[in-house]
Amino acid sequence: MSQPTIELLTAATPNGQKISIFLEELRIPYTTTPIDLSESEQKTPSFLRTNPNGRIPAIIDHTRGSFPVFESGAIFLYLVEHYDKQCAFSFVDADEKSEMLQWLFWQNAGLGPMQGQANHFYRYAPEKIEYGIERYRNETKRLYSVLEERLEGREYLAGKGKGKYSVVDISTFTWVRWAAWAGVDVGEFPRLKEWAERIEGREAVRKGLLVPDGEDQISVVELFSDPSLSKLTHFRSA
Amino acid sequence: MSQPTIELLTAATPNGQKISIFLEELRIPYTTTPIDLSESEQKTPSFLRTNPNGRIPAIIDHTRGSFPVFESGAIFLYLVEHYDKQCAFSFVDADEKSEMLQWLFWQNAGLGPMQGQANHFYRYAPEKIEYGIERYRNETKRLYSVLEERLEGREYLAGKGKGKYSVVDISTFTWVRWAAWAGVDVGEFPRLKEWAERIEGREAVRKGLLVPDGEDQISVVELFSDPSLSKLTHFRSA
Repeated sequence: MSQPTIELLTAATPNGQKISIFLEELRIPYTTTPIDLSESEQKTPSFLRTNPNGRIPAIIDHTRGSFPVFESGAIFLYLVEHYDKQCAFSFVDADEKSEMLQWLFWQNAGLGPMQGQANHFYRYAPEKIEYGIERYRNETKRLYSVLEERLEGREYLAGKGKGKYSVVDISTFTWVRWAAWAGVDVGEFPRLKEWAERIEGREAVRKGLLVPDGEDQISVVELFSDPSLSKLTHFRSA
Repeated sequence: MSQPTIELLTAATPNGQKISIFLEELRIPYTTTPIDLSESEQKTPSFLRTNPNGRIPAIIDHTRGSFPVFESGAIFLYLVEHYDKQCAFSFVDADEKSEMLQWLFWQNAGLGPMQGQANHFYRYAPEKIEYGIERYRNETKRLYSVLEERLEGREYLAGKGKGKYSVVDISTFTWVRWAAWAGVDVGEFPRLKEWAERIEGREAVRKGLLVPDGEDQISVVELFSDPSLSKLTHFRSA
């Protein structure tokens, strides 16, 4: 029998890639179970036992009694608790840790849902509803401007001084990388663009972006230069 | 000079009431700074120094060097870390704690934003857009059905056995209490209704609901029986 390990149930979306990137950064063994969103595999009884909310990503930690975890923010904190005891990607200091959690919730409760709605009205809605397109694109741009301001004099989102690369950067990066898909040009936010390129330069990040299909759907360069993204017909936000 | 304490910057919204309820549960001294959303006081330079995202609630902990915390989920975890060391409203066990975090992120990233959008299209949007009203009401109802299933055989959302009252119940309760405002009838979800009434029965909860205006805008009974809520002209979701 093979060694029990962490199972990542995922698809190639911003939320899914958060976790594959972090697992690559942690350099811990994991297996991937691709979830085909076009076949609604995230709604099967088997998947719902892991995540009753029917969304990717989710993990099952087979090294700890097959403990299931859903919600990308909670998966980050679970992996930090058990597999980042040295806080290489988080913080020991209580105030820095709180700062990380503030931006982590901000990404999960604000940027993710709002950019997701921008994707919906801009790309997927059966009717073209200008009000919805504008509402969510504007909110996404407002949230990007908050990040742009945050990055003044900083290299990363949380931590003292210029900050330290942590789970909150990973969590935010995968969404910023897909900005053009929501009709937003990251070029308008120069510090944010530089920050995203800095993160994209990491080997673990590039590896994580290949999960689970073995190929990256888009490069940052393409995203920044081609807002129409006509090649990306298969992408679905989750 | 008076003793330094925790300052809560808030308004009478579901996200604001989360934190006043938890401060009441913790029985720690705090002061309240009401933020008038109708005057956009959450966008003033002074407020933005506490929360660069311009949203209530936020706290400033004047007992710890005036440390600022924004995002209700992060405020809960900050207060747990420093003021609930016995884990009366959280968990010692790592797996139970993870369960709490999973549902806390679920509330902050799913239920809150989606019910907030349902409020927007149902109550505030300048145009009546049927697609938006239905999209977000349906998603809110789907999320309530996830809670309804979760509460089968349970009294509270996280913890072993029947569960234990924790910050995740507070975080979810304030939104469920405003269901009718989004056009959702909690009566369709009997376990959820019973859970909400159980929480509403707590003295600290009733006290927290009076912050910052000194009066409760609505009782659960009214919400359940009067979906039109014609009295509530001042309420704004934040």
